[in-house]
Amino acid sequence: MTYQALTETTVINYIKNRPALAAMFPPQAQLKAQEVGDGNINLVFVIEDPAGGQSVVIKQALPFMRILGDSWPLTRARIRFETQSLLLYNELAPGLAPQVYDHDEEMSLVVMENLNRHEIMRKPLVARRRFPLFADHISTFMARTLFFTSDLYLTGQAKKELQARYINPHMCKIQEDFVFTNPFMESEENQWNPLLKAEVQAVRANAELKLAIVDLKESYMAHAQALIHSDLHTGSIMINEHDTRVIDSEFAFYGPIGFDVGAVLENLILNCLSHYAHTPDPAERSEFQHYLLDMVRTIWHEFARKFEALWLEHNQGELVPARYWTFEGGEAAFAEFRRRYLLNILRDTAGHGGCKMLRRMMGVVTVWDISSIEDGQQRAIAERAAIKIGTRWILERQQFNTVDDLIAVVQEEMKSLEDQEEHP
Amino acid sequence: MTYQALTETTVINYIKNRPALAAMFPPQAQLKAQEVGDGNINLVFVIEDPAGGQSVVIKQALPFMRILGDSWPLTRARIRFETQSLLLYNELAPGLAPQVYDHDEEMSLVVMENLNRHEIMRKPLVARRRFPLFADHISTFMARTLFFTSDLYLTGQAKKELQARYINPHMCKIQEDFVFTNPFMESEENQWNPLLKAEVQAVRANAELKLAIVDLKESYMAHAQALIHSDLHTGSIMINEHDTRVIDSEFAFYGPIGFDVGAVLENLILNCLSHYAHTPDPAERSEFQHYLLDMVRTIWHEFARKFEALWLEHNQGELVPARYWTFEGGEAAFAEFRRRYLLNILRDTAGHGGCKMLRRMMGVVTVWDISSIEDGQQRAIAERAAIKIGTRWILERQQFNTVDDLIAVVQEEMKSLEDQEEHP
Repeated sequence: MTYQALTETTVINYIKNRPALAAMFPPQAQLKAQEVGDGNINLVFVIEDPAGGQSVVIKQALPFMRILGDSWPLTRARIRFETQSLLLYNELAPGLAPQVYDHDEEMSLVVMENLNRHEIMRKPLVARRRFPLFADHISTFMARTLFFTSDLYLTGQAKKELQARYINPHMCKIQEDFVFTNPFMESEENQWNPLLKAEVQAVRANAELKLAIVDLKESYMAHAQALIHSDLHTGSIMINEHDTRVIDSEFAFYGPIGFDVGAVLENLILNCLSHYAHTPDPAERSEFQHYLLDMVRTIWHEFARKFEALWLEHNQGELVPARYWTFEGGEAAFAEFRRRYLLNILRDTAGHGGCKMLRRMMGVVTVWDISSIEDGQQRAIAERAAIKIGTRWILERQQFNTVDDLIAVVQEEMKSLEDQEEHP
Repeated sequence: MTYQALTETTVINYIKNRPALAAMFPPQAQLKAQEVGDGNINLVFVIEDPAGGQSVVIKQALPFMRILGDSWPLTRARIRFETQSLLLYNELAPGLAPQVYDHDEEMSLVVMENLNRHEIMRKPLVARRRFPLFADHISTFMARTLFFTSDLYLTGQAKKELQARYINPHMCKIQEDFVFTNPFMESEENQWNPLLKAEVQAVRANAELKLAIVDLKESYMAHAQALIHSDLHTGSIMINEHDTRVIDSEFAFYGPIGFDVGAVLENLILNCLSHYAHTPDPAERSEFQHYLLDMVRTIWHEFARKFEALWLEHNQGELVPARYWTFEGGEAAFAEFRRRYLLNILRDTAGHGGCKMLRRMMGVVTVWDISSIEDGQQRAIAERAAIKIGTRWILERQQFNTVDDLIAVVQEEMKSLEDQEEHP
């Protein structure tokens, strides 16, 4: 079938004409389709058999970015990157990504499990819902997908062959531009709260900060450390109390591990700040903010613990053969190597997380947790704190030694904000 | 033609049956062929028309590594990497690599200019021959091939497409093993001067050194900074007083720039040390050693100057759009970014150069300049100094600020060696 964007009508014919998909439903099923995409670049259909209850999701790539109309052409090949990474996640971290049922390269679509008992994580976090298993799930997802695709586990050949399958220039370009570049210079698509004009201008004229951001962009572009999801914010996570699924992996490529970890932690921090508006009651607010900061701490500790445990269990990668450490003091040296490797990931996490925090405040892509605050003054409280924290995470990252150092910056900025509220 | 290793007889038939090659010689030419390869993994034929004077070189990949017999299978695809990189060098740095006339993927061979007025650089340097244009040529070669393939010049898309064409796992594996790993642990193919047993053991048990070497290996494996030659020692350089040509680029892939610069500088240092044996007269020796150290200094300065000049002239790469620096103080910030970028290359140069210096003393691959010293005691003088310098280049690299810091280490170790000779 030649590529054509599907509609709620044609998607049903598509399924009926594709044996592997048709077989998923009874022959007489009166399928219903609904387009539910709220993304910018894809169509997302939920197809259901109202009688039988079986349902699937079809995600189809559009050849342009919706948010900017037809003017931003996008390669449909991204669906291939999403499909192959989802299949890999199903292998490496079973149960933490949707199952994939089918894939049609020509039509640029992937057919997968309908996660109708899950919801995108942002809104429930704004509603102060708690997810007791999330830290465990997401740290497992990151530890396993990142470790098993790194030079710590793979042979050099296997890693490079995988890397070749994930040369993903068009999707990388979106992050290169909109995470690391355009938000920090004049660019017409940028948007920010007019109340923050001074802060935004200060970021764009902060030489040391901008030098650090270029270093982070260089690492995003050239540090092929592991197969990263590369868009792992809370809008790419579907969740319920029992279950966590990572979706939307079309940006996947070989990049720095800290970019993924940074995305998760940074989005939790932004949600935490959003409660200055969403949760007016100070005690209620403070309690949930603590909950989120504890979650940040736990995610890092669990990620680091699981990553290191996998390393010790599968110490077979090209980077360092086990025998390399066979000398007097070698065991301690290997432990020190692991410590430094994880410390570098922590510092990258702060750097990349900081960039992404800033870009959400002054680039084209906002963050729903905060952009949903209607009152500009109220919104500015969270935004101003985010700019301060993002800036400090970037500039101070080489002095960070534990995740508590990252959290301390958040707490200091929150305290200074609360002091101002009390004594304006 | 199905792959078969050519001989001095069959190579002539090969040429006569391939129109593009046959046309290079008169129809009646009585071609003569000679196999001149001294490498470990390839056949190299010189084919001449004794009457007309026209001659070409055919380099054909063998499917195994000669040095270890059939036991080390090697992909013949490496000839494709060599061919495409030589063609690229002809574009980016005209006149500094041999011309390519033909390429036969199935036969794993490349046909190129016969550089019969050039010689491999090692022997003439041992004979204290001077090459007044070399520093200019090699710095131009490195500045142009490295800058024009980096994110400083290319769009993200062009860089990643080029990178995909140079995913070269088999050849990378050779350097990963024999530069960064095996020499620093027990591995049966390692060889070293028995007089240096203590020094070699000390390297293999130096935890801080080995931690640093893993960092350098990580950057070799995962820092896709530019298309590097990846074997740019003085055995890969053919030279005469007027002309310099870089050959043997089958290791080419996207790696750290300092690996190439380090290879050139390190090999000049090893040659410099070899004169403790090759040049017994102290005045003559000292004069040539100074000449080489000056050459090291000039190569770095010229490389850095040309690299930065290209950057200023073609400031169009994905990494930093010129507009990013449009702010009060932005020009100074851009200058600072260039300074730090080049400083990082200098430090990488010391690190990678240091690893390569060490591996030549205690791995499977020796260096002719020094291995040709027959007397073990004499050889140990140069080798011991090389181990000290290599170790210090690696361990002290983050404190280096100019190339003079690298050279000062060499001079200190040479002085200490000379003091010992005077007062043993």
